[in-house]
Amino acid sequence: MLNFDFQNKTEIIFGKNTEERVGKEIKKYGKKVLLHYGGGSIKRTGLYDRVIKSLKNENIEIIELDGVMPNPRVSLVREGIKICRENSIDIILAVGGGSVIDSAKAICAGVPYSGDVWDFCVEGVQVENPLPLGVILTIPAAGSESSMGTVLTNEEGLYKKSFGSNLLRPKFSILNPELTYTLPAYQTAAGVVDMMVHVFERYFTNTKSVELIDRMSEAVLTTIINNGEKVLENPEGYDARAEIMWAGTLAHNDLLHTGRETDWASHKIEHELSGIYDMTHGAGLAIITPAWMKYVYKHDLDRFVQFANRVWGVDVIGDRESIALEGIKRMEKFFKRMGMPVTLQEAGITNDRFEEMAKKAISLTETIGGFVKLSKDDIVEIYKLAK
Amino acid sequence: MLNFDFQNKTEIIFGKNTEERVGKEIKKYGKKVLLHYGGGSIKRTGLYDRVIKSLKNENIEIIELDGVMPNPRVSLVREGIKICRENSIDIILAVGGGSVIDSAKAICAGVPYSGDVWDFCVEGVQVENPLPLGVILTIPAAGSESSMGTVLTNEEGLYKKSFGSNLLRPKFSILNPELTYTLPAYQTAAGVVDMMVHVFERYFTNTKSVELIDRMSEAVLTTIINNGEKVLENPEGYDARAEIMWAGTLAHNDLLHTGRETDWASHKIEHELSGIYDMTHGAGLAIITPAWMKYVYKHDLDRFVQFANRVWGVDVIGDRESIALEGIKRMEKFFKRMGMPVTLQEAGITNDRFEEMAKKAISLTETIGGFVKLSKDDIVEIYKLAK
Repeated sequence: MLNFDFQNKTEIIFGKNTEERVGKEIKKYGKKVLLHYGGGSIKRTGLYDRVIKSLKNENIEIIELDGVMPNPRVSLVREGIKICRENSIDIILAVGGGSVIDSAKAICAGVPYSGDVWDFCVEGVQVENPLPLGVILTIPAAGSESSMGTVLTNEEGLYKKSFGSNLLRPKFSILNPELTYTLPAYQTAAGVVDMMVHVFERYFTNTKSVELIDRMSEAVLTTIINNGEKVLENPEGYDARAEIMWAGTLAHNDLLHTGRETDWASHKIEHELSGIYDMTHGAGLAIITPAWMKYVYKHDLDRFVQFANRVWGVDVIGDRESIALEGIKRMEKFFKRMGMPVTLQEAGITNDRFEEMAKKAISLTETIGGFVKLSKDDIVEIYKLAK
Repeated sequence: MLNFDFQNKTEIIFGKNTEERVGKEIKKYGKKVLLHYGGGSIKRTGLYDRVIKSLKNENIEIIELDGVMPNPRVSLVREGIKICRENSIDIILAVGGGSVIDSAKAICAGVPYSGDVWDFCVEGVQVENPLPLGVILTIPAAGSESSMGTVLTNEEGLYKKSFGSNLLRPKFSILNPELTYTLPAYQTAAGVVDMMVHVFERYFTNTKSVELIDRMSEAVLTTIINNGEKVLENPEGYDARAEIMWAGTLAHNDLLHTGRETDWASHKIEHELSGIYDMTHGAGLAIITPAWMKYVYKHDLDRFVQFANRVWGVDVIGDRESIALEGIKRMEKFFKRMGMPVTLQEAGITNDRFEEMAKKAISLTETIGGFVKLSKDDIVEIYKLAK
C-alpha cells in the first residue's frame, strides 16, 4: 500500500424528495445562485419547477445558464464565468449529470482566475478559491457529484481535457434515485459502464498489498452488475436505482483510489473518441475498455484472474490465461446485454482517424496509463482491437 | 435503502513517517496545542519526541495532559477542559488509541459549554463550536480517528456512556501503520474484534435492499479476517498492519452506516462489562457478540446465512439454521485464534452482577438494539449465554 492523503468533504444528501431541501442548502453559502443545467429534460419532468420553488422559498436570487451539452464546451464555461462575475454570484447550482456538473466546476474555478479557463487543462494552473458548488444529480455515471475533477471539450480542435482539485468537490450533492426513473435506457446503460470503468481505472494497478480496496472495489462492481439489468427491466424500481446511484458516487469519490497507483488510459483513449465523434462517454468506454484489457492483461495475469473470479464469477480452474480472457468476455457480454456497443463498427466509426486520435491522446505526455504505459503506437493498436 | 445524509470531513494522512507532518497540520488551526496522551508508551517508542520536534519546528506552544486510561474517565476530561480554558488552547492533538481520542473529543466539546461535560452523555445536550481536534493514531480499533462519537466512563457509579456530533470528527488523523508494530498481541487482537463489531452493528439491520453497503461491509470484514492472524504472527509486517489500520477506520467512519438502520446492542451490553470490570472493550466484545448473535439470529435467518456464507465461507448447503450457526462458530474460533476470551468465565467474570449490568444498559431507554429490541430480561439472557 502506498502512502496517501484522503479527504472528501462533499455532503451527500441521498433519497426520496431530497431535492426539496436545495433552497436551505444553497442558503448556507449565499443569496445569489447561478442555476446551471442542460436542455429541457429537467423542465419536462417537473424538477426545474421544484428547484425554483425551493430556492424562492428561501429568497434566493436566481440567474440561469442552460444549454450544457454532453461533452461540455469551454465556450459555455467562458460565458458562465462572465455571468458570475457580472452578477456577483455566491454559489453555482448544477442540476443534471456529469456534463452539467463538470461545466459548473470549470466555471467555479474560472471566476477568480485572471487567465483563460482552458489554462487549467493544459498549463497546469492550480485552482484557487473557486466558487462553491451545489449539485442535484440526475444521471448516475460520471461521479462528478463528489469527485475533484472536471472534463471539458475545446471546440477549437475538438480537444477533450481534464483538470481537478480537492477544492472543486461540490459542497453538497443531492441524490434522489427517483429523479433517474425517466432516464432513457441507453443513457442508463452508458452510466453503468462509466461508473464501472471508474473502478477499473483504479483496480488495475501495479501497487501490491492492496487487499482492502481491491475487495471494496469488487463489492462496488458486483453491486453494479447485479443491479444494471434490473434497472433496464424496471426503470421505476427504487431499490436498484438507489444501488446504482450510490455505487456511481462511491466508484469515483477517491476512496477506491487510496493507497495505490491508478491507470486512466481507457478514459484518455475514449476521450478522443467522444471528443471527435461526440458519442456518449460511457458507450465509448464500453468499446475501448475490453480492447484495452485484451491488450494489457498479460502485464499482470494474477490481477486479471482475480478480476475474472471475484467480479465475473469465473472458476479458477485450468489455464490462467483462459480464465483472464473469460472474465473480459463476460464483461463484454454484460455490456451487450445492457445495450451498449462493444466495437467501433457498431458505433459507426471507421479506422481513418486512429493515428490522429492516438496522437492527441498523448499530446501532453509521452505515454498514458499507470498500469501499462502506452505509446502512440500502442494506442493505435487498441483502437484496432476495438474495430 | 433509507434516505441518508453522509459527510465525513476528516483528512486521513496515511502511511510511513506521516507523523512528521503533524506540526504543519496543527499550524493550520492555531499556535497553542493541548497534547493529550495516555501513559509512557509513546515515550518508550520515541513517538513523543518526534511529535514534540515537529510541533516545535513550527513554533507551536505545547501544553501537555497525559494520564488517559483505557475507558477514559470524565474526571480527566474535566481537568482538560479547565486547562484549555485557562490557556486559550487553539486545538487539541490526541496521540494514542480510542481512549485518548475519545477523551480529547469530550474536552473539545466541553470547552465552549457552560454546563458539565457529562450532560452530553445523559441530557442530550448538542455539541456546538467544539475545539478542533487532530489525531495521531497508535491503536487501530475504536475508529474514533474519523468517527463522530466518544465514549466516556463516569467513575461515580461506573457508568459508560457515549455522545456524538458530526462536528466532533477530527480535522485530520495521521495513520502510520509502523506505529502499531509495538502493540502487544492482546491489544492488537482486541482492536481487530472491535473494528469487526463496528461493522456488525451496522450489518445486522432490518432495512431491506442494502446490497452495496452489505458487500462493502463484507469486503472490510474479509480483509480484517485475512490479515488479523498475519499481524499476530508478524507484528512488524507493514502490509498486514496497513490493511488492518485502514480497515479499522473505514469500519467506523459511517460510510457503512449509510441507508440503513443499525443495532448497537452488543456495544451497549459490553460497555457495562468494561465499565464495571475495566476490561479491554474489544475483549468484552469477543465475549458478548457471539452470545448476542446466538440470541437473535432467528430474527433474520437469511441475513445470518448471508453472513456465514460471504464472510466465513460456509457453503449454502443443507439446513439454513445450521449454516447460520456455523458462521457464528467460525467467528468464535477466529476470536479464539486471535487470543481473545469468548466466555465471561475465561475473563474471570462470574454471574453475580448480570441484573445490575442489564439494568444499567437500559438506564436511558426502555430497550436497546435496532435489529432486535432487547429488554432488561433479554440482556440478562445474553449475559447468561456468554457465561
